Amino acid sequence: MMGRKLPDRRLYGLHAAAAAWTNPERTCRALWLTGTAAGQFGPALAAARAAGLDRPAPEPVERAWIDKRVPAGAVHQGVLVEVEPLPPTGLDDLIRAAAVAPKALVLALDHVTDPHNVGAILRSAAAFGALGLVVTHRHTPEVTAALAKTASGAVDHVPIVRVTNLARALEDLGAAGFMRMGLAETGGEVLGTVALPDRICLVLGAEGDGLRQKTKATCDRLVRLPTGGPIGSLNVSNAAATALFEVRRQHGPVDPTVGR
Amino acid sequence: MMGRKLPDRRLYGLHAAAAAWTNPERTCRALWLTGTAAGQFGPALAAARAAGLDRPAPEPVERAWIDKRVPAGAVHQGVLVEVEPLPPTGLDDLIRAAAVAPKALVLALDHVTDPHNVGAILRSAAAFGALGLVVTHRHTPEVTAALAKTASGAVDHVPIVRVTNLARALEDLGAAGFMRMGLAETGGEVLGTVALPDRICLVLGAEGDGLRQKTKATCDRLVRLPTGGPIGSLNVSNAAATALFEVRRQHGPVDPTVGR
Repeated sequence: MMGRKLPDRRLYGLHAAAAAWTNPERTCRALWLTGTAAGQFGPALAAARAAGLDRPAPEPVERAWIDKRVPAGAVHQGVLVEVEPLPPTGLDDLIRAAAVAPKALVLALDHVTDPHNVGAILRSAAAFGALGLVVTHRHTPEVTAALAKTASGAVDHVPIVRVTNLARALEDLGAAGFMRMGLAETGGEVLGTVALPDRICLVLGAEGDGLRQKTKATCDRLVRLPTGGPIGSLNVSNAAATALFEVRRQHGPVDPTVGR
Repeated sequence: MMGRKLPDRRLYGLHAAAAAWTNPERTCRALWLTGTAAGQFGPALAAARAAGLDRPAPEPVERAWIDKRVPAGAVHQGVLVEVEPLPPTGLDDLIRAAAVAPKALVLALDHVTDPHNVGAILRSAAAFGALGLVVTHRHTPEVTAALAKTASGAVDHVPIVRVTNLARALEDLGAAGFMRMGLAETGGEVLGTVALPDRICLVLGAEGDGLRQKTKATCDRLVRLPTGGPIGSLNVSNAAATALFEVRRQHGPVDPTVGR
């Protein structure tokens, strides 16, 4: 198991910082902006003011000042914000939110450990209107600034539900009416040929190992992607995007009220 | 414009190295393997021998020896191979290959500059059976070891066609019977609702800027993804994967003879 990394209290990058700044559920402690970024961040400042959010005054800084406070090479775009972690979302909250939606899409990850993959998946989940991302406490990266930057603001729009036992969470989702569809190279059906009901939970595993046996056993269907040839598998974030797209193709366009 | 980087003569990582080692069009100068990697690389050694490829004897090394010859943090998996760049593929070659295929899928990138994105796109293009990737000489990264690692062997399976003028290349593909479908947030149609003909060229632009005006004007259709909400756009490699999937969904499973 990887060493446990505490959630970062600082987020960087225009999209990640703006999403945090305008999220009513976020507590923001400080905001540092370069001269260039101040202009680009203007709409986020205005939106937070219009929403009556309690926000500190932005502090103007030089680019080099931020460079020293983020990992080497991080594309911070002249924006750094100090935040509190978001309040945790429970599986019950997610199931309640899904209960009032005419169609519901949820994503579950089985030990996907690369923060960039999880960030990219979160971004796609937001774009395709997923209600939440279910992950295991262990073998899932914490929401670091790097993950949040890759997610491009999606950490403030798609709740992450951390569970101890993924199979049990999938059972609960099944009891709530969700079809649990796992992506597996050994799947007997092909994504794109399976009719999907109104409540779908997509389940993806780590690259290489794929879904664990116990996770597979909890899925209602196992589907494979219509890929082939010598390079038969996709990067997990690309696999997630195709499956999210397929749900959206069958469910219809994203409900604009989804996400905060 | 970015500084021009020469193609790397060394590739690392199991998949990237094995694909080069077993590619008859690749000249390989040397191969270094750690003890652990030697076992995992066995099938590639056997395949190259069975195919009668002229390959040097592998040299056993310690992991630290390779560490010193790759960028810091590179996941080389104990494999390093020294190669010559692949012979260039022209647009004519690609059009000739497509002419004998009952269905043909080609991907074109308009100034996608991030090597990890291009590598991930190449991997998805291979998995979904694309015949080639058309890119511009300028504003496209060279095939570095990092790009090849992300592509997971696909640089040795999907030919990259570098052209000076993308709009002219798209005109040539149009004359060869390809429908040119551009992905654009302003697209009037939605991916997944458009019936696709047997010859498709998908056209994707850089994140942020999207397709250039001249590129858009050369496309037959402009489609958008069925996304929405506050995070409306996908990472470009995820957008490419969804579009490749949609073509494959309509074209049917990958022809196993595609790719070398």
